[in-house]
Amino acid sequence: MCNTYKLRCITCGKLFEPSPTLYTCDKCGPRYGTIEVVYDYDKIKLKKSQFNKCGDISQFKAILPIKEYPIRQKVGNTPLLSFKNFYGVKNVIFKYDGTNPTGSYKDRATAIAISKAYEYNFDTIYCASTGNAASSLAGLTTTTKLKTFIFVPSNIPIAKLAQLVVYGANILKIDGNYDTAFDISMKIGSKLNWYSRNSAINPYLLEGKKTGAMELIVQLDFNVPDVVFVSVGDGTVISGIFKGFYDFYKLNLTNKIPKIIGVQAEGADAVAKTFEKGRPYTPFDIQPNTIADSISVGKPRDVIKACKYVEKSKGKFIRVSDIEIQKAIFELAQKTGIFAEPAGATAFAGFKKALSQKFISKNESIAIFITGNGLKDVNPIKNNIKIKKIPPKLEEVLKYIEVIK
Amino acid sequence: MCNTYKLRCITCGKLFEPSPTLYTCDKCGPRYGTIEVVYDYDKIKLKKSQFNKCGDISQFKAILPIKEYPIRQKVGNTPLLSFKNFYGVKNVIFKYDGTNPTGSYKDRATAIAISKAYEYNFDTIYCASTGNAASSLAGLTTTTKLKTFIFVPSNIPIAKLAQLVVYGANILKIDGNYDTAFDISMKIGSKLNWYSRNSAINPYLLEGKKTGAMELIVQLDFNVPDVVFVSVGDGTVISGIFKGFYDFYKLNLTNKIPKIIGVQAEGADAVAKTFEKGRPYTPFDIQPNTIADSISVGKPRDVIKACKYVEKSKGKFIRVSDIEIQKAIFELAQKTGIFAEPAGATAFAGFKKALSQKFISKNESIAIFITGNGLKDVNPIKNNIKIKKIPPKLEEVLKYIEVIK
Repeated sequence: MCNTYKLRCITCGKLFEPSPTLYTCDKCGPRYGTIEVVYDYDKIKLKKSQFNKCGDISQFKAILPIKEYPIRQKVGNTPLLSFKNFYGVKNVIFKYDGTNPTGSYKDRATAIAISKAYEYNFDTIYCASTGNAASSLAGLTTTTKLKTFIFVPSNIPIAKLAQLVVYGANILKIDGNYDTAFDISMKIGSKLNWYSRNSAINPYLLEGKKTGAMELIVQLDFNVPDVVFVSVGDGTVISGIFKGFYDFYKLNLTNKIPKIIGVQAEGADAVAKTFEKGRPYTPFDIQPNTIADSISVGKPRDVIKACKYVEKSKGKFIRVSDIEIQKAIFELAQKTGIFAEPAGATAFAGFKKALSQKFISKNESIAIFITGNGLKDVNPIKNNIKIKKIPPKLEEVLKYIEVIK
Repeated sequence: MCNTYKLRCITCGKLFEPSPTLYTCDKCGPRYGTIEVVYDYDKIKLKKSQFNKCGDISQFKAILPIKEYPIRQKVGNTPLLSFKNFYGVKNVIFKYDGTNPTGSYKDRATAIAISKAYEYNFDTIYCASTGNAASSLAGLTTTTKLKTFIFVPSNIPIAKLAQLVVYGANILKIDGNYDTAFDISMKIGSKLNWYSRNSAINPYLLEGKKTGAMELIVQLDFNVPDVVFVSVGDGTVISGIFKGFYDFYKLNLTNKIPKIIGVQAEGADAVAKTFEKGRPYTPFDIQPNTIADSISVGKPRDVIKACKYVEKSKGKFIRVSDIEIQKAIFELAQKTGIFAEPAGATAFAGFKKALSQKFISKNESIAIFITGNGLKDVNPIKNNIKIKKIPPKLEEVLKYIEVIK
């Protein structure tokens, strides 16, 4: 396994030695000072033949900052679906992470956080989350020796609590909003010496998230797509996906890095705003409002990294409306068979918008990351269902069929 | 691909040549006369090395009654989780089918039904269902040329409709109960020359369902477990699982058939009743009442086959209460990380009951089929969630943690 890595502040570039309690740069603070894991690529010799199309994410351990991998469930090895002449585009590939153990891309990050908690001998791990990060942590710790605490805001919907409760996580429902829950989680974690799986704060999560890109490349026989679409909330998934392409490129396993397009909901476009204002990147905070709850983020915590990485890939950010997201859920399901949660379908909505704006060309090969399972949140669909009752008579049913045909 | 098969009535043994319109035995009727697919095992030469641990179900095509396989999504290749000294039992294996494209075991059957519809040049496929069969058919036909019609009863819950609507299936909501919808679907299907994916009626569904057992055997390097637990509603899944083990045994790829234990909900135990009354098997019809809706069946349509096959395997049927099923959902999630729908967790509840009744020994190797994803139905969990709000103060949170620790 790989131990030759250092940690580096994304803003000031200060280098740190890995330590169990180092989360963000002491000088730049938790917002500007999120941390990158830096490898000495010259010392890591990898061959394409070392990887295979049915391994879980532990197949990438030589380029992951872990010593052991105590995960029982199969994280990764998620399906890839390719379509030729899709919306007129020569080659469109979907990487669908809804088949991960708890149904989302977040399992990749959680698996690495758990591995680090083992390495550093923590007995408890925690996060503040209302969504996929929480259910992922609750689900993947079930078969480990770790105790798990999840901090949730008081307005968390009951359906989201269900997955946490069924996995038996300790739930701390804080009388306040998400930011209140987040802040108190950090204080408690530090006081009680618990390991943090808080997004962006923990530098190793991104290393887990990079495995989706690496897996895509392996499944494509090391052919790199030209353009990649990823939905963006906090900015960690898109940063992780860039890092996966970057690591493979630096290891001479591929010959380029794709253009990465971040797709945000119009009502939660804080990262896009920061990116478009340009360097030096300064976080915008907003009041988020979108149906895509997994990316409904007002105060993105990995915004600096997301902007720098997307710039490096020569990509950009685009926005889609809630109506476009809702339409994308249906269209994606009906064209590909993939039932995505709203945040997952957002990337597909972005692809359609980029196409209509002629930002991508029909000869480019496109990859679209679908980050979560639609069964996680059926509410955006439920609200518009109106289906007529038909009397149970043959003639009546035949008449109805004639009409809808 | 394999074309050397005949069809045989499960009751009178009459042989039929395959035909696009043959569903059940003309003499014995749709209840007693469900059909088995019979192979000439001597003519099929298969080697263990032909199979692999990451193929979809099309890897079994030499022992499937299909000519082509037009499915784009990856059906099968579902995870296997092994536990040593689990509840004191030496070796317990879970085969979890919640990662199939639409989240349930039914995708295996649907894939074969679609393949047959292609072979026979149908342009439309249909089923009557309120649950997993319907969403499976709606989901897997999206990327095919087939039109899809789903007959549902008028009391179908909106959450179940959501998955059908998102996939764009044509929904025929019949003013009546499930049996009314089923009966009218058969009449319409026959009148309009549509292909039927109705459970038990279509003999090829079971051939799809056998692939779960075959995949398990391949994943276990052709070691057959001693005892297998399967939840039972209509009786087709358990029949299919027997058939998978049986085919592999008859092809000399394995050396035995495991004991198969069917697990039914106490409130929907029609198959168990029929089995226990003994030969000649005569269907019992009941008014079903259980929280495990995927197996809440009053008039099981594959009851004869299920009874004969379980008998042949030297297995039996056991019953579990709704309280045991509900408890099993939580216990399964917390011990294995698998969040199962109620019908899925029923098989695990059966394992626990068999253990407490000393019906299985601690030295036997056990396989438990978990047939559906818990995200499909969070209602049985939602109802009992009560979590106290904690004031957002460090001292208060610490006090609460002290109490729950």
